[in-house]
Amino acid sequence: MPAYSTNMRLKFPILALVLEIITIILFAVFAVYDDGKGHGSGHHDHDNTTHEANPMELYPMFQDVHVMIFIGFGFLMTFLKRYGFSSVGVNLLLAAFGLQWGLLMQGLWHMDHGKIKISIFKIINADFSTATVLISFGAVLGKTSPVQLLIMTILEITIFSINEHLVANVLEANDVGASMIIHAYGAYFGLAVARVLYRPGLRNGHDNEGSVYHSDMFAMIGTVFLWMFWPSFNSAIADPGFTQLTAVINTYLSLAACVLSAYAISSLVEHKGKLDMVHIQNATLAGGVAVGTCADMDIGPFGAMLIGFIAGIISTLGFKFLTPVLASNLGIQDTCGVHNLHGLPGVLGGLAGIVAVSLGKKKDGNAAMQAAALASSLGFALVGGAITGLIMKLPIWGQPPDQNCFDDSLYWEVPADEEEHEESLAHADHSKNKTEA
Amino acid sequence: MPAYSTNMRLKFPILALVLEIITIILFAVFAVYDDGKGHGSGHHDHDNTTHEANPMELYPMFQDVHVMIFIGFGFLMTFLKRYGFSSVGVNLLLAAFGLQWGLLMQGLWHMDHGKIKISIFKIINADFSTATVLISFGAVLGKTSPVQLLIMTILEITIFSINEHLVANVLEANDVGASMIIHAYGAYFGLAVARVLYRPGLRNGHDNEGSVYHSDMFAMIGTVFLWMFWPSFNSAIADPGFTQLTAVINTYLSLAACVLSAYAISSLVEHKGKLDMVHIQNATLAGGVAVGTCADMDIGPFGAMLIGFIAGIISTLGFKFLTPVLASNLGIQDTCGVHNLHGLPGVLGGLAGIVAVSLGKKKDGNAAMQAAALASSLGFALVGGAITGLIMKLPIWGQPPDQNCFDDSLYWEVPADEEEHEESLAHADHSKNKTEA
Amino acid sequence: MPAYSTNMRLKFPILALVLEIITIILFAVFAVYDDGKGHGSGHHDHDNTTHEANPMELYPMFQDVHVMIFIGFGFLMTFLKRYGFSSVGVNLLLAAFGLQWGLLMQGLWHMDHGKIKISIFKIINADFSTATVLISFGAVLGKTSPVQLLIMTILEITIFSINEHLVANVLEANDVGASMIIHAYGAYFGLAVARVLYRPGLRNGHDNEGSVYHSDMFAMIGTVFLWMFWPSFNSAIADPGFTQLTAVINTYLSLAACVLSAYAISSLVEHKGKLDMVHIQNATLAGGVAVGTCADMDIGPFGAMLIGFIAGIISTLGFKFLTPVLASNLGIQDTCGVHNLHGLPGVLGGLAGIVAVSLGKKKDGNAAMQAAALASSLGFALVGGAITGLIMKLPIWGQPPDQNCFDDSLYWEVPADEEEHEESLAHADHSKNKTEA
Repeated sequence: MPAYSTNMRLKFPILALVLEIITIILFAVFAVYDDGKGHGSGHHDHDNTTHEANPMELYPMFQDVHVMIFIGFGFLMTFLKRYGFSSVGVNLLLAAFGLQWGLLMQGLWHMDHGKIKISIFKIINADFSTATVLISFGAVLGKTSPVQLLIMTILEITIFSINEHLVANVLEANDVGASMIIHAYGAYFGLAVARVLYRPGLRNGHDNEGSVYHSDMFAMIGTVFLWMFWPSFNSAIADPGFTQLTAVINTYLSLAACVLSAYAISSLVEHKGKLDMVHIQNATLAGGVAVGTCADMDIGPFGAMLIGFIAGIISTLGFKFLTPVLASNLGIQDTCGVHNLHGLPGVLGGLAGIVAVSLGKKKDGNAAMQAAALASSLGFALVGGAITGLIMKLPIWGQPPDQNCFDDSLYWEVPADEEEHEESLAHADHSKNKTEA
Repeated sequence: MPAYSTNMRLKFPILALVLEIITIILFAVFAVYDDGKGHGSGHHDHDNTTHEANPMELYPMFQDVHVMIFIGFGFLMTFLKRYGFSSVGVNLLLAAFGLQWGLLMQGLWHMDHGKIKISIFKIINADFSTATVLISFGAVLGKTSPVQLLIMTILEITIFSINEHLVANVLEANDVGASMIIHAYGAYFGLAVARVLYRPGLRNGHDNEGSVYHSDMFAMIGTVFLWMFWPSFNSAIADPGFTQLTAVINTYLSLAACVLSAYAISSLVEHKGKLDMVHIQNATLAGGVAVGTCADMDIGPFGAMLIGFIAGIISTLGFKFLTPVLASNLGIQDTCGVHNLHGLPGVLGGLAGIVAVSLGKKKDGNAAMQAAALASSLGFALVGGAITGLIMKLPIWGQPPDQNCFDDSLYWEVPADEEEHEESLAHADHSKNKTEA
Repeated sequence: MPAYSTNMRLKFPILALVLEIITIILFAVFAVYDDGKGHGSGHHDHDNTTHEANPMELYPMFQDVHVMIFIGFGFLMTFLKRYGFSSVGVNLLLAAFGLQWGLLMQGLWHMDHGKIKISIFKIINADFSTATVLISFGAVLGKTSPVQLLIMTILEITIFSINEHLVANVLEANDVGASMIIHAYGAYFGLAVARVLYRPGLRNGHDNEGSVYHSDMFAMIGTVFLWMFWPSFNSAIADPGFTQLTAVINTYLSLAACVLSAYAISSLVEHKGKLDMVHIQNATLAGGVAVGTCADMDIGPFGAMLIGFIAGIISTLGFKFLTPVLASNLGIQDTCGVHNLHGLPGVLGGLAGIVAVSLGKKKDGNAAMQAAALASSLGFALVGGAITGLIMKLPIWGQPPDQNCFDDSLYWEVPADEEEHEESLAHADHSKNKTEA
């Protein structure tokens, strides 16, 4: 890659400020507070029945989802030894912009007298829309500039809101926990981008593309918060009452079963039966992804556990055997292995949804529409991701050269660590030593 | 200890997979979703009055408890310098399996037409059941294999559910915050196991049995999340309304008072009046444990504060003076000092409950039954722990040899840290230096 | 500074124990549980309408605020390389004492038949009162002893409760998110204390007054939890229903817009367009502070975003250009830059409130009373802080000498880190090397 400037001064501030000003203007024109008098969001008739009674009812669930987006995704990606500032910091940037953009893009499909009425239900969906971007971010982590990623955010959320509208309102497919429209979509979108941005120079890996002990600990903060609050993710927009309870219980149990199978397979495939942090940080969550589509269906507690159990196996095997093949044979360098955490389990979730609906586990479900929803999500992801990747590839967005990948210091002021300080002292000492000798 | 194999390949995966498959089969036979039509859980008549109205009412409290189990207990134990992966990772494994097993074991006592009806109330109790295991885990932290710990999980939760049934339904004793049935039980169970697994080779300590600066910081994440959400732990299954409010306020105030006394005593007993992280991480929580039994009783805000104040003193003194004696004189090597955080304060809580009930602070309370509940909890713990310890001692479960205790690298792939990398470079440099000299 | 003893033994334990015992006695005399039969808290008529129906209604919001106080503020201050124990540990100490003291001080103004009736509403306000102290703590972080800080806690909360009563009940001004009475008050109180405690010896900085890579990561935990839960902070005591929803949405959007402007300005003013962790950790939160006073007003979603957008700019510029000037020209050494996070945005929030009320955005609002509330908050802060600083300056509270500032090891047992251990080994090695040479 030629040595284009990675200096973000001007480029990044101008883009960020202009985007925010445009967004504020659009909010001034279109957005108002929900007053409980609207015709509902059109989504599951949820707004109609409940929000008018208590507009804050879903607030605790919103906060759980909020934690998943900002702490969960942010810290999950801090496993790299020198990329923690970018992981949690750029995660915050993309999600903060994405939720505003998502509110607008999703809101356009559900206008009420020309206005987007903002409710807790709507801001949950806005947070959801950012999840697609954060998943894709994982695929290209360490190899993209903040400018590139802001561009990806705009395009990915725009395309997401089209596919979501198609799946939920046109096809009327079920995807309460968004296995298809968020997880599979976000993963394959990110993989398509990664394919277009393929870097032959990183074929043999990179010194900084690994963890240190404490960076793996930080990542576990992300993992555990995602794991704990996933029942809220999968049930937040479910029908209130016992349907929502079903979504919580199915997700709770699927995740628990998934932990056991992920740990077992990790130990089975690793050297001397040891556990691998990459699997523990990621594959333990596959059960939450895979049970998403079926979460509010009457699949039985054991059905949810079976889905989680299988997801943990598939995800761990994917990390071990599939990721290296994708990188070496298909030119898809997937930094965080989002294919194994979101891609494969998302598709598994979509397939489970087709089966469950076929078996009559969801009233008024239609298996053909479920299949169409899965196909649509994958199609939008791959085509949208490829186009987005081509735009991101333009050599004007300050992308890092190969040797500076996975390194915060390109875009962040990084403190000189004490050990480095001591090391440099030590070197000085060596020289002195040498001279004296 | 003879050099038995610590290689977990086969042993661990087979155990984990078989356990999970058996569990899924049991769920297929026994577990269904709560439909609001049951005769209640029989516990405080809680289900009867509230859940039918809104099955999600307790969900925010459930999530707080969930955070305590997975972040709180998990990170509290990360204080050891090289045992963070195991602390938070094995905590996740044991709790994920334990909650499934707990749902079954507790559910067997509350069947409805032969089925266990899963509600939010039930999954809170399932999370609670895992707390006993995580407390005991603290006593044997660093000296046991994941295989041993899975065995402990099965046995400890099974015995817990018998004792819980006895205390709550037969004796009809009060223990809303579970000072006796979780904290005292979990601590003395763990101490009994630790006694049976006594390692003379660790009599003089171990290089890795200490903290480094950042591992102490990670542990504070656990401490603070436990501290904050303890009011939810103690009130989650209280009677709704003002009784639940009482449990929240008592716990909130007990913990606040406990912080002051724990800090004061830590400074009083330490070298030069300094504070000790071990006390701050643990003894500040003793107020939550000790007020558990009385949490929903009319003991007055100052009564709760008095309990917390005393608990902070006892717990800190225990860490300073009792733990060393237990190790050297009784052969009880209590890694995390669970005796001081859960054991002594749990007994204090049980005694406070006897006094409070004697003073008429709980309608229909019976002091004799309270005393019987405390005795029962201690008895089941000591006998159950001893038997469990004997089973865990069988030399086939891959337990670590003394020299590899408190070291993640026995069961985990551990990244080579940068400083180690640099250190090895430095060594190379030294050699070169030497040669040149 | 003369070498007064920094040994806390006796001084600190006696103060902490005596304070706690006095507090327990005051609670025994004055505090009872809320029983729903009172005449309300007099604050926004909130208690009257809602609490009697369900005394636990605000509990999830309380827990969000609780997390902000103990994790948010605690970890935000852990950015210093060797001051993490104090940041999160002393934060816990001060907040635990402060909430008890705040319950008493605020309760005195709202007695019911001579009793303080503790409700969720009251403990939210108690948590709020501690926020003033934690903000001021940030200004003097690293340069004060725990004894000094406990004294500051008593005085600052006492004065806060007077000003709060004046603003809310006498002036009847609006400040639902407390831009004025918490953020501006806490910041200017802390700056006044810092001015009185000016240390010429730190004029040229201090070796330990900086971050290392992982301490910046710990600080991001604080930042992100504050950022996520700020909507709860600004809406917890709002009128229930759609007014509370408005406060949530305004805060959510203000914070999102603030992130974009803070990142943009950080990149614009830093070397080579890089992002600076100090700005990201702090200025991204200015939007939550600045929208506080207006949070429950009908300013429109875009109005909230505009406030957040401006706050992010002002705050970042303050860190870059104003803080150095305050330190060098005015003798105000503001360790965490609380002036930029709480001071300037708090005043901006107060001014925005005056404008919004003038424009009729709040029913029954009075712009003159808003202005009086801002002036009162600043006046109490500056005078109260100066007096408190003079008391704290008495050379008997164990304050650290200049060379030991920003160093945990003065008041804490600090583990010898592995790298230090290795370093000392290396030194030994050097000597040997040297000898041989």
